[in-house]
Order: sequence, then structure tokens, then C-alpha cells
Amino acid sequence: MHATFFTRKLTTRYHLLLVACVALVLSPLNSANAATLSGSEQANMTSLSKTALNSDLSYQLVESLTTEVGPRMMGTPGDTKSIAWAVSKMKHLGFDKVWTEEVTSTQWLRGKADAEIISPYAHKIVALALGGSVGTGDKGITADVVQFDDFSALKAAKSGSLTGKIAFVSYKMSRHIAGKGYGPAVGTRVNGAAIAAEKGAVALIMRSVGTDSNRVAHTGIMRYKEGVTKIPAAALSNPDADLLVNQLKRGKPVSFYLKLTASIEAEQVIKSANVIGEITGSESPEQVVVIGAHLDSWDVGTGALDDGIGVAMVMAAAHHISKLENRPKRTVRVILYAAEEVGLLGAKQYMIDHENEVNNHILGAEWDFGVGNIYEMTPRVGPQGLKAIKDLAKYLSPLGVKLSARNNGRASSDMGLLTDAGMPSMNFSADGSQYFDYHHTENDTLDKVNVDALKQATAVYTLFAYFAAQAEVNFRK
Amino acid sequence: MHATFFTRKLTTRYHLLLVACVALVLSPLNSANAATLSGSEQANMTSLSKTALNSDLSYQLVESLTTEVGPRMMGTPGDTKSIAWAVSKMKHLGFDKVWTEEVTSTQWLRGKADAEIISPYAHKIVALALGGSVGTGDKGITADVVQFDDFSALKAAKSGSLTGKIAFVSYKMSRHIAGKGYGPAVGTRVNGAAIAAEKGAVALIMRSVGTDSNRVAHTGIMRYKEGVTKIPAAALSNPDADLLVNQLKRGKPVSFYLKLTASIEAEQVIKSANVIGEITGSESPEQVVVIGAHLDSWDVGTGALDDGIGVAMVMAAAHHISKLENRPKRTVRVILYAAEEVGLLGAKQYMIDHENEVNNHILGAEWDFGVGNIYEMTPRVGPQGLKAIKDLAKYLSPLGVKLSARNNGRASSDMGLLTDAGMPSMNFSADGSQYFDYHHTENDTLDKVNVDALKQATAVYTLFAYFAAQAEVNFRK
Repeated sequence: MHATFFTRKLTTRYHLLLVACVALVLSPLNSANAATLSGSEQANMTSLSKTALNSDLSYQLVESLTTEVGPRMMGTPGDTKSIAWAVSKMKHLGFDKVWTEEVTSTQWLRGKADAEIISPYAHKIVALALGGSVGTGDKGITADVVQFDDFSALKAAKSGSLTGKIAFVSYKMSRHIAGKGYGPAVGTRVNGAAIAAEKGAVALIMRSVGTDSNRVAHTGIMRYKEGVTKIPAAALSNPDADLLVNQLKRGKPVSFYLKLTASIEAEQVIKSANVIGEITGSESPEQVVVIGAHLDSWDVGTGALDDGIGVAMVMAAAHHISKLENRPKRTVRVILYAAEEVGLLGAKQYMIDHENEVNNHILGAEWDFGVGNIYEMTPRVGPQGLKAIKDLAKYLSPLGVKLSARNNGRASSDMGLLTDAGMPSMNFSADGSQYFDYHHTENDTLDKVNVDALKQATAVYTLFAYFAAQAEVNFRK
Repeated sequence: MHATFFTRKLTTRYHLLLVACVALVLSPLNSANAATLSGSEQANMTSLSKTALNSDLSYQLVESLTTEVGPRMMGTPGDTKSIAWAVSKMKHLGFDKVWTEEVTSTQWLRGKADAEIISPYAHKIVALALGGSVGTGDKGITADVVQFDDFSALKAAKSGSLTGKIAFVSYKMSRHIAGKGYGPAVGTRVNGAAIAAEKGAVALIMRSVGTDSNRVAHTGIMRYKEGVTKIPAAALSNPDADLLVNQLKRGKPVSFYLKLTASIEAEQVIKSANVIGEITGSESPEQVVVIGAHLDSWDVGTGALDDGIGVAMVMAAAHHISKLENRPKRTVRVILYAAEEVGLLGAKQYMIDHENEVNNHILGAEWDFGVGNIYEMTPRVGPQGLKAIKDLAKYLSPLGVKLSARNNGRASSDMGLLTDAGMPSMNFSADGSQYFDYHHTENDTLDKVNVDALKQATAVYTLFAYFAAQAEVNFRK
């Protein structure tokens, strides 16, 4: 049955359909109470869980990545170092195959941000350029500030009403376990500069998208709009945004100075790479269970949380599986995506490079959110797949992970593109209450890693990957 | 009796002694159960407590100081602005007298700190010069790092063993409600550079004296030793210190680059001032109850906690007392000290300027520690004074303040010099668990103020000052 179900070189939907029909007849899952895994496989699940919970490998990996590489923004020396680091570590960890797939882009350089309130009460302001922002020129920009409470208010401003002004959006992100405060806040970061420019503004400043109260600003990607003037855009730290709000409250004009030495080097092609490693399947190696994270980070912290712990846990998960007596039936593929922060460039390249193999992607999950324990999983699978996932849930329940009632999960971040292309997916929800205290800041450093939560998450990804690689299930069906 | 006890122009110890003897005979405190305050005075205590707890005046004051002035290190424009601010606010708040007393010093300029690990793994490091440090010169200093676990280990290093090296003390301060972790950590900051220089080091770097995990470093005053080479000294943020420790753990030489543009402008005399305001006593105006705080701050944050809230609460306390129908019997004097951070210069000047009036300082308390509620008070008074303080404790108990069993309190910070000169004193212990997350950093900003705790502390200082100004007690006796 394995041989029938785990057909090799399966590339067309027709084949998949056929195979699924055969599976429907032959699979033990037709029997409602049948376990997805055999006794020895169940024993492996128990053993893998223990191994992962007792191992500090994932912590060692994130310690190594942050200490020996550090920040690794696309196009920086750290990015290049991180690729060599990942290849070397995967080989050392006993992956069967390790390779890279080139990703290219143009260069953006952050430069420095100097910001000040000039009057009525002079203050130095902590700011960071938003990712992709143009610079201000050497003289900087000095202009009066017009405040908006949120992105909607900015959008509602009359055309021309911001001529010669610096637009300031003071909206404060709220804290939430699932990071739900991010959505309402991030619109300004991504599109605020284009909207403000349309209304005549000479620059956009915004309260950082973050839940902390530290004088470190949060960067993150922004986009310009075709045909609209590109104006500089920067985020202020939360306490600095408070200060600006308090000055504005006094009702006098507030003059602000902003100098960004950021630059877009449009002619310069820079290279990065997705780093991919596999524990090759013993029966259907072309069928891949994918677990991923992004290898790049912003340039300000050491990317410990975003996404160092993701990188560490998926590498550790595959390693733990590789230490079993036998290789799993399907391949476990670890994808460390390049250039997520600057626009999912690695993920887009992966979709191009693997266009014809999407159907061989059996089930996938990425980690790119949270710092605390995983508390829930939300699949997006077919009915048969869902039965199996309910079985998987029994193994993850002792780890504190419950199965969501929804079946509309999307793999996080980069891997969402594979979900969109039809790959059965899993979304693991981790506690993100503290995540946006550190996200995209200088403060994203090793000390923020929750060591116990990292062990739990590593155990979850290990069990998830082994289960999917071993289960005789077509998760699409 | 009032007129007898509250003699005017009382300036000699002889007079005080005489008065005390008279008081001993006449005071109702000879009766064990007598209340220190009369019925109407007790009603004032109740009314003052309500007023202070319901008023946001102290918050408004710290908001104003941090927003309209900001950082105010001795010798900076902010320092000058803060003096004008304080004088103007005191007048506006209805103080009977407001004046300044000049304080002079030489200038120290922080300049910028550039720090990097050069090898084996290059990283930018967040650092700040220690207050008073010399600069490195334009080329900076590049040298291998020698780590010491604590100040004792540095002191135990052999003479000459650090020749050409950068000494690094990695000791981590612990968190404690009373800030007890500060003592074991701060020795390195104050004297580490001199000790390291004696052993041949070319610079001192140290983990910040702080309990946070933010990439902001903690500054603070340091001192050189006569006849020992002045070497540059800087504090690293906690996460950066972790990173350096982790690189050193790998056992390879770690090369470090430090550039400080700090400078000591020894020839340039700079001026600041103690700002003093009084609610003048109605019966014995020459007898002063002093409540104080320091008006200066370091130059990196806006000095909201250190010592903006202190400034705000003592000003608000005096204001609340001024709104009573009658002036208290004794004078309530608010002292806003200059230049505390750079070496208690304002306090030292005050002792010179008021050398002959120390005996007229009836009772005093400063605020220069903590961000949470006051939970305890420790007096240093005579036996009669202690009886009265036990009575005061009844008024403060509903606010959550208990009387310590000890009678060896010292007024905080600047005002400790008055305690040392014999002034009866009170030390209020406030929750300092979070204080050293922010102390002497860029992060000492308005958002860190605990609004409810500030109201409580303002109420405590208000009741304390009124009680001491009104009670017919010689706290020395």
C-alpha cells in the first residue's frame, strides 16, 4: 500500500486524483477509529517529543546564529555569512542534502536617521528609516508637523492639505496574544508615505508599530506608489511619539527636523539565497513535508526572534528526525527563506524554482511569529487530511497545543505562497503578547528568547514533520 | 505655648537646648496618649490626603518638565532651562518665596560612543561613556578584551596583567525592591577605570548597571584616581554585554574597538543653581521642614523618574499645603538641588550656603529613588521625635506606608548631607523593582511614570511636610 500510495515522480493533478481515489479505498483511515501511525511510529513520536523537549539544540543554533552572524539584512555582509552558516550547520547536523537557490534584488541601504523637534521645545528624537525609504538629502527636511490619530484619518485628509508639511500618524498598536494589534497599525507603515505624498506632505513620520515603551524604533518594509512622489518615511520610538503628541497638544506649531541618509541603489543587483536542506524520504523522497523560517533579518537587532528561533527550531526538528533509526517515508525539507523582510523575495523565488513541484508539497508550516508557547494549530487540509490532523492533535495536546475548530489556516509568512498555490498547510499560533515589544528593533536579541517555549515549539515542529512524513495520508484530500 | 516653642530667629544650639527643655515640660507629648496634632490639624491632614490623592498636579509637573525642558545635565542648555522652569512654576504655584543659589563646576561633555567587536565575529555594540570619562582620541582604541566576572576579580588582577588590554567587567546587577543590587554593581562604574588603569588597561568597558534587557546603556558618574592614568570608560547595554560574553566563551581572542568623543573642559566654569521655594511658616518661619529632589538629570533620557517625579511631588506637596486656610507654623522649604548626578554639587553648595542654619532644619526628606509606591519610612530622630513619627505613621498607614523598626534613616541622596550634619531625617522606601530598568538611560521618559504611585507619594510627602511643620515637636530630641 505504501508503494501504491507513495507514488514517485507524481507531478500532475490527474495523478493525484487517481492516487487519492486508490487511497480512499485502501487507506485504513476509512475506518473511523484507525490510528494514522503504526505502533512503532507512535513510539517514534513519543521518543521524538522527549528528545526535542530535553535538547537545547535549537537554543544552541539561535545562539550561534545571533553571536557568530548577527544582523543579516538582504544585501549586507551578514546575509552572506548567514547563508554559509546555514549550509555548514545543516551539513554538520546530518542533513542528507543541502543546497542553495539564488535570490536577487536591488540594494537598499538604511543609513542613519537624525530627528529632532526644533520648536516649541527642542528635543532629540529616536527614529529609524522605514525599510525601502528614500533619503532626505544632506540638508534634511524641516517642516511643521500635522498629526493624524490613525491611518484612516491620514487617508481622509484633503488633497493638498499637507503641502510642505510632515505628516505624523500617532496611532498606538495594542497588545494581543495573536498579534491582532499589528494589522490596524501596519497600514501606515506600508502605505502611509504614498498617501501622505499624494496630499502634498514632504515626509511621513509615524509612531513605531510596536507595543513596547523603549527608545528604540521599529523598522519594517514600506512601499511607494507608481507616479507618486517618493517621500522619506521614518518610525519614532513610542516614548518619542508620546513626546511629540504632548508638544502638539499644547496647540502651538511644532517644527520637526528629519534627516535620513537611506538610499535605494536601483542599479546594483545583490545576491542572496534560499538555503534548503532535506532529510530524504525512504519511500517517497519526491514527496516533501516542508518546515520553514526566514534566514534574513532586519539590520538593527540580531534577529533572534525574527526569525532566528524559527530557523533554529526547523533545523533542530529535522535533525531530531534524522537521528531515528530509519528515515521517514517522505522527505522532510527545511526551507530557510532569503529576503523575507524586504518583500518575501525568497518565497517568490521558491515558487518560481519549484513551480512544477507544488503538488509534491504534502504539508507545510513556517514559524515567523511569537516568542511564547504554541497554543493552537489551524490546518488547511482536505477531509481525509483533517482526520489525520485530529490524530496528530492527540500527540500535540500534551504539549499544550489545541486544534482550532477552523480549517482555513495559512502557513505563516513566506510559506503562505505555497498555501495559496494549494499546498495543505498548518498554522501554529504562538503567544505573541511580547513579540511586538522587540519585532524589527535593535532589541531583537538572544536574551529575548524564551528557552522553554523554544523547546516546546521545537517539539511541536518535530512531531508535525515526522507525522506528516510518515502518515499514509494525502492531506489535500 | 506655640509662641514659646516656636521661637523666632533661633540660631544657636544653646537656644535650641533651652527651647527643647521648655518643650519637654510643656509639650502635650509628655502625655503618652496625646495626639501630636489638634483636631483642626488632624482635619487638615485628612483633607490634604484627599487633595493629593485626587490631584494630578504632580503628574502635570513632571509632564511639563520632561516635555518643555527634557534632559538637564549640569552645564547643558536644558539645565539652564530647568532652573527658569522651576522658578516660574513655583511662583505660579503660590510659593511665598522663590530664589536660586548658584552652583558652579567645570564642564564635562559626553560626546558620542562608537563601539564594535572587531573579531572573531564583528558586531556593532551599544555603549555610553560613563559620566566624567575622558575621550579616546579620534582614532579610538582597539585592543583585546580581558573579562572579569565582577569588581573584586578586577581588583584581584595582577599588576601589569592588563597592559594594552581593554578590561571588561561583566557583572550583572540583580533586581530588588529596595534596589539592593545597585551596591555590588556600581563599584566598577565609580572606580573600575582607575583600578583597571593601575593594572595597565587602556580602557574599561562594563556591563551597564541596570536590570533591563534593552539595547540602551546606563551611564552614571565615575571617578579617576590622583596619579593614575585616566583611561576611557564606557558601559555596554545588557544584550551587548551578553553578546560579548558569548563571544569570549568561545575561547578565541576578542578584539574590541572603542571610540569616545567625551571631553573634560577643565578650564570652563559652568553655572547652575539650586532652586529653593518656601511656604513661609506663620509662627516660626525660620524653622524649616525641607522636602527635596534634584532638578538636574543625565543627558540621555528626559529624567522623568530620576528625578522628575521627585521634583514634581515636592512642588505639588508644598502647593497643596499652601492652599490650606492658614500657613503652617513652620516653613515648608522645597529644595531642588542642582548637579546631583555629577557629584552632589548642589547639595555640597547648599551645605556651604546654609552652614549656620542647619539647626533650623527641623526634619527633612528627599525623593530620589523608585518608581512604585512608598511602602516604608525609616526616621532618624530623637526619642520625642520618634513618638511624633509614630503618630505620623497613623496618617500614612492608610496609604500603605509602614514605619520601619529602625531609627537610622538617612535622607536620600543630596539631603543625606543634612542628615550627616545632624538634621532629623526621614527616608521613604519606594518600590524600586523597576527603577534600574530605566535609571540613567535614554529610557527614563514620561511613560515610565506610575501615575497612581506618584499620587500616593505626593500624598505621603504632603502629609509628612505638613505634619512636621505643624507638630509642636523638636525632632532632634
